[in-house]
Amino acid sequence: MTQGVHEQLVVIDGLQYSNWDRPLFEELRAGGISAVHVTLAYWEGAGETLALIAQWRRRFESHADLICPGLSGADVLAAKAAHKTAIVLGFQNSSPIEGDPGLVAVFHELGVRIMQLTYNHQGLLGAGCYEPQDSGLTRLGREVVREMNRVGMIVDLSHCGERTTLDAIAASTRPVVVSHANPRAFHDHPRNKSDTVLRALAESGGLVGFSLYPLHTGGRQRSRREFCEMVARTAELMGAGHLGMGTDSVRNWPHSVLHWMRHGRPADGGADPTLRWPEWPDWFRTPADFPTLTEGLLDVGFAREEVARIMGGNWLRLFTQGFAPERN
Amino acid sequence: MTQGVHEQLVVIDGLQYSNWDRPLFEELRAGGISAVHVTLAYWEGAGETLALIAQWRRRFESHADLICPGLSGADVLAAKAAHKTAIVLGFQNSSPIEGDPGLVAVFHELGVRIMQLTYNHQGLLGAGCYEPQDSGLTRLGREVVREMNRVGMIVDLSHCGERTTLDAIAASTRPVVVSHANPRAFHDHPRNKSDTVLRALAESGGLVGFSLYPLHTGGRQRSRREFCEMVARTAELMGAGHLGMGTDSVRNWPHSVLHWMRHGRPADGGADPTLRWPEWPDWFRTPADFPTLTEGLLDVGFAREEVARIMGGNWLRLFTQGFAPERN
Repeated sequence: MTQGVHEQLVVIDGLQYSNWDRPLFEELRAGGISAVHVTLAYWEGAGETLALIAQWRRRFESHADLICPGLSGADVLAAKAAHKTAIVLGFQNSSPIEGDPGLVAVFHELGVRIMQLTYNHQGLLGAGCYEPQDSGLTRLGREVVREMNRVGMIVDLSHCGERTTLDAIAASTRPVVVSHANPRAFHDHPRNKSDTVLRALAESGGLVGFSLYPLHTGGRQRSRREFCEMVARTAELMGAGHLGMGTDSVRNWPHSVLHWMRHGRPADGGADPTLRWPEWPDWFRTPADFPTLTEGLLDVGFAREEVARIMGGNWLRLFTQGFAPERN
Repeated sequence: MTQGVHEQLVVIDGLQYSNWDRPLFEELRAGGISAVHVTLAYWEGAGETLALIAQWRRRFESHADLICPGLSGADVLAAKAAHKTAIVLGFQNSSPIEGDPGLVAVFHELGVRIMQLTYNHQGLLGAGCYEPQDSGLTRLGREVVREMNRVGMIVDLSHCGERTTLDAIAASTRPVVVSHANPRAFHDHPRNKSDTVLRALAESGGLVGFSLYPLHTGGRQRSRREFCEMVARTAELMGAGHLGMGTDSVRNWPHSVLHWMRHGRPADGGADPTLRWPEWPDWFRTPADFPTLTEGLLDVGFAREEVARIMGGNWLRLFTQGFAPERN
């Protein structure tokens, strides 16, 4: 029965970063995922990012039976009807715009729909969550948020510091997201979010996408029940209309990519060779395991209609409203 | 009466490279120009080119009463009806694609419709016209021509060497252009084209855009009558259906830009400080003087219908057919 429920849902994963190939697109199908927000860039400049966009154009042609571009909420519904997965392109850092707010509109034209303002470190737009001092959204940051609001690119704050996050929520005239993180009350980690942030996020009309990445849950021993009970507690804080999934699945990368991902190009002679990707829980190893989340949410007492919203309905609402240019 | 004829024509200038501001857009209007192919890049990489595209997006907003994007033949006709000038974006070199054929489609998505394969020097796709040895279209060059044919980006050969030019005409399955040059028979200069090239160009269905740039005409002392008689002789060689204008107007730039334009970043300690832009003939100083070309062509005996084709009709046909993806 639960499998039947899952199949009927519009399921959206709010973040994945993988070294894509056909077997991974088949995993998305196995998970019944109608749309996934994929990361294009962490540290790449404009030129490198264009090459990554060109790579996606080729994938859309070569795997047209499994994936399609996700430029709007309508694309996601069409993907679901065709048993495909819509790919929503996004950045986890502002490096591709190279400090030029005009590139927000240019990348939006090319299909980029979500941009995180900063990633871990201080950036041109604000501070990342590992920066010891967070002086908040910069002047350029305010300008870029305004431009993202104007053209219809959703502001993502997952890796931003607390003050930058709160500043950006206040500065944005449209709903913003934390695409992949958990409440600090569940696991106290710099990448997770305080209740203050989560409440402000809900008030903005945005959402938090719950992460399965073991660093954000406390480790692979966390049970499905513990995870889903955390979702239930967050629903009490924010309302079920402001929750989604953002698994932060990372597939197919060598361990060496981890240092680059966290810190960019090494400034100190090279990446730490002992770094390893964390091990995932037995009950959620890949995006093919998505149906277990639907089952787990039903088990902890969510109504079917709430599960539909958390598994994708809320993301779909944001995509539909947030990817279009601002109405004047 | 002649002014009346000019006003009725769809007038297209096949190349200008200017440091654009509002007075220059007003010059285009004064010249009755419905579309102009403008150069975005000579040596810029992908990232710099994106910033230049973003700059055009701002111009389209700020000067919406004078200019609009030119993405198709229909855009040009709409611009004419609205007394505006459609701006067709192009590259004079392949530097923006950084050796990645996938970027052809990406820049086409962003509105780039014409790309010259090489500029003066040896490039990744072939040799420029000042290169002592021209080994023809490279393997990557063939791949890029195929991709340009596929997506609908017109191949421009104005600054290519003779062998590269002939190779590209043969390799392209769709009409190609020499957007701005003159016959060598008129003025013997490496930038001008041999009768062999001009005949092959006509056979491909393409066109040559006649240049007013003094280096291509033999100097500012060339009269309007001499220029228009050259057009008439070329019509005998190629047919009036394969001729257009491509003035190569350069406006608003300091003299220092000239060295950069010709040679890229100086490798030898700096640009030649004595370089100066050439002086233009009294009868054609700026694009506002376009009506005089219509008058001159009528004077040397072209029929009104032929003048309509040479002043813009032939370019319009190429835009309409060449900017759309290839039909399979």
